[in-house]
Amino acid sequence: MDPYVIQMNRKGSLPSLLNVHVNIGGKNSLPGKGKGRKARWSVKPSAMANNTFNPIRAIVDSMKVKPNPDKTMISLSIGDPTVFGNLPTDPEVTQAMKDALDSGKYNGYAPSIGYLSSREEIASYYHCPEAPLEAKDVILTSGCSQAIELCLAVLASPGQNILVPRPGFSLYRTLAESMGIEVKLYNLLPEKSWEIDLKQLESLIDEKTACLIVNNPSNPCGSVFSRSHLQKILTVAARQCVPILADEIYGDMVFSDSKFEPLANLSSNVPILSCGGLAKRWLVPGWRLGWILIHDRRDIFGNEIRDGLVKLSQRILGPCTIVQGALKSILRRTPQEFYHNTLSFLKSNADLCYGALAAIPGLWPVRPSGAMYLMVKIEMEHFPEFENDVEFTERLVAEQSVHCLPATCFEYPNFFRVVITAPEVMMLEACSRIQEFCEQHYHCAAGSQEECDK
Amino acid sequence: MDPYVIQMNRKGSLPSLLNVHVNIGGKNSLPGKGKGRKARWSVKPSAMANNTFNPIRAIVDSMKVKPNPDKTMISLSIGDPTVFGNLPTDPEVTQAMKDALDSGKYNGYAPSIGYLSSREEIASYYHCPEAPLEAKDVILTSGCSQAIELCLAVLASPGQNILVPRPGFSLYRTLAESMGIEVKLYNLLPEKSWEIDLKQLESLIDEKTACLIVNNPSNPCGSVFSRSHLQKILTVAARQCVPILADEIYGDMVFSDSKFEPLANLSSNVPILSCGGLAKRWLVPGWRLGWILIHDRRDIFGNEIRDGLVKLSQRILGPCTIVQGALKSILRRTPQEFYHNTLSFLKSNADLCYGALAAIPGLWPVRPSGAMYLMVKIEMEHFPEFENDVEFTERLVAEQSVHCLPATCFEYPNFFRVVITAPEVMMLEACSRIQEFCEQHYHCAAGSQEECDK
Repeated sequence: MDPYVIQMNRKGSLPSLLNVHVNIGGKNSLPGKGKGRKARWSVKPSAMANNTFNPIRAIVDSMKVKPNPDKTMISLSIGDPTVFGNLPTDPEVTQAMKDALDSGKYNGYAPSIGYLSSREEIASYYHCPEAPLEAKDVILTSGCSQAIELCLAVLASPGQNILVPRPGFSLYRTLAESMGIEVKLYNLLPEKSWEIDLKQLESLIDEKTACLIVNNPSNPCGSVFSRSHLQKILTVAARQCVPILADEIYGDMVFSDSKFEPLANLSSNVPILSCGGLAKRWLVPGWRLGWILIHDRRDIFGNEIRDGLVKLSQRILGPCTIVQGALKSILRRTPQEFYHNTLSFLKSNADLCYGALAAIPGLWPVRPSGAMYLMVKIEMEHFPEFENDVEFTERLVAEQSVHCLPATCFEYPNFFRVVITAPEVMMLEACSRIQEFCEQHYHCAAGSQEECDK
Repeated sequence: MDPYVIQMNRKGSLPSLLNVHVNIGGKNSLPGKGKGRKARWSVKPSAMANNTFNPIRAIVDSMKVKPNPDKTMISLSIGDPTVFGNLPTDPEVTQAMKDALDSGKYNGYAPSIGYLSSREEIASYYHCPEAPLEAKDVILTSGCSQAIELCLAVLASPGQNILVPRPGFSLYRTLAESMGIEVKLYNLLPEKSWEIDLKQLESLIDEKTACLIVNNPSNPCGSVFSRSHLQKILTVAARQCVPILADEIYGDMVFSDSKFEPLANLSSNVPILSCGGLAKRWLVPGWRLGWILIHDRRDIFGNEIRDGLVKLSQRILGPCTIVQGALKSILRRTPQEFYHNTLSFLKSNADLCYGALAAIPGLWPVRPSGAMYLMVKIEMEHFPEFENDVEFTERLVAEQSVHCLPATCFEYPNFFRVVITAPEVMMLEACSRIQEFCEQHYHCAAGSQEECDK
């Protein structure tokens, strides 16, 4: 007699009988089953799911954010340049997508690392004599997030560690810990325009160090490393034989008085995986087109790492083919004026915001040189009502309807991050409300009366 | 003295000195370094990269495929309906993308699980009274591959096992083994139109079984399970308390004499994650829009599995927002005629191909009912020149310039898979060449002379 048919008959007419089977508590209560079968439902998330932790979500979701109903909300919390509608992408970028759609050539599967023609285009766009690139050195990914995921996945095994900047983008930790990779934090120094504390960095390196993540220009700092500082970073990496994951998603997004140097252009020996994408510079983060550039002039990664990246890319097959198909025109036809206008706007906002916040007692902003962020130190001793940056920013929402991310999200307490992509009038209004908030809550710290008398 | 500066000075003028540091073989040769640092470059791919193995790539890449120069190549190997250009997507689908681009509303980051409005649209499209769906039950992903990846990642931890069909889509194994999850193969029975051998399936289940993957309609078989067979599968899952991952990417792609039943519509108690996407039915596999539908009417997954999926989705942030923005119009405006025409074409090709191959001595095709594939048994005893299906298909390329995947790619030796999306004239030509090939290589098996005399 077929037990499946019996079950079926029962199910149709006597569903409660089936529940008896589903809910039985004993083990192996069906005859003839030697193996340990499951006697009851128990579906638990995997270790990986449990270990996937996004600190920004955890902190922001737990904030009791009820804006002041008398003031319109100004959210300077999300690193998405499109949210205010004042920074549209260039019409050439949109047209490139329509052309790709109309061609009908980009609906099928691309190779998992991206179309050869699209990879050639990226290679030629980012090629330079000191850091030559060919199509074989380019892997297209579903956004820069997947680029970082693939790089970490290929370089580090469970039990190894990676070096991550503090303050830094939270995704590094989220990805690493979900894969059982330990995170070691190296310090950025606000008093040195967020340069790396190289001695402290070097002291963290051990035999289990799989890679060093360098994020330049920086989220959340808006800082841009000088050529000489980048060279010093490379020297440490070379001396310690640690490959670098360069998160350069804000590459070329630097203000006129600063210069972006791709890390790989300065390296003759340290192998580098550079991650980038269309998201920020072309103002289309939702399109999810990122890339990995493989720089390995000493053949230290060799075919093994390259093959590993290719294999890992086969898991989910890369970015949307329409965006891949549009890439050539996006890179070639976007006018210089578009990049220039974005950066002029960001620099103007950065200056305005820095000036306004620097004048507020108890705050200490660090002037940015690129990207779209500005970090502000809260002199907590002057705000004794608030326990920390999370409470400070929480109350800022409650009283002034201005939302900035507490830098605890970036493992850097007592700072907050300001996104500087809002329209100028909104930035000014936000700064003015932050000033009102600080003036209302500022207290002289003990033993610094003279400062308060200023 | 700052060692970083010293290194820098050296680097500029005496690069060979730096190489000494890079290439030193001894341990801890720099003074003052107590920790075990790396004394030389050694960058190896991670365990995960090493364990990521795509059998199709491995088998196909190792095939010595040199087509016959006198015959044009006909490739019936890739499950991409767009490659021949005869199956374009509907103009409404392309227009929906252009409208999404023109709106300017879909350039920013979406929530990592997708826009609420897009998830509502999917929920209402696939909702039915027996299997109700709301937006909270839908997660948008970067293609159905990522949907499967997230489902496996949330349900199974390293050391657990999953049940996978044989023959079956190779991605299940690729993903599982890269995550340290064991794969147990259950058998599909060709003589029963590829129904599952339920007894053998049930015998594989143990306490470490994290989920059962059911692929219906099937790649590579083109089979479609009956309602009654699906109910029997559910009975096993309920009795053994094993949740189901239903890979339904070919859902609704069944021929007129067959009917597709979403597995969840028949289940009142087994929790099911159903994976689907735009790829096949809308003929745009490169666009990478997939989804997970969470069916959990007994609250067995509960919030834990839902939260786990959300957390995992934050790793790389979902599919391209333009496609998400186009989803509503794609689902609402694609004319019924489009679906009908695709299926009529596929059924006609399936019939034609089945008829032609069934007439060839030594081959035994299994008639498909859906999807876009047909499996053919090679009676290897009649082809003693060839060791296996890999060699058979290899020689078919070499002599007839027809490329089909050997079913060893699907863990099912001595079959090959035919993709039936090529234009009719090309399908006919391919069948005719396969016939010529078989006739040239057919040998009577020992003891079956009467069959050869037919």
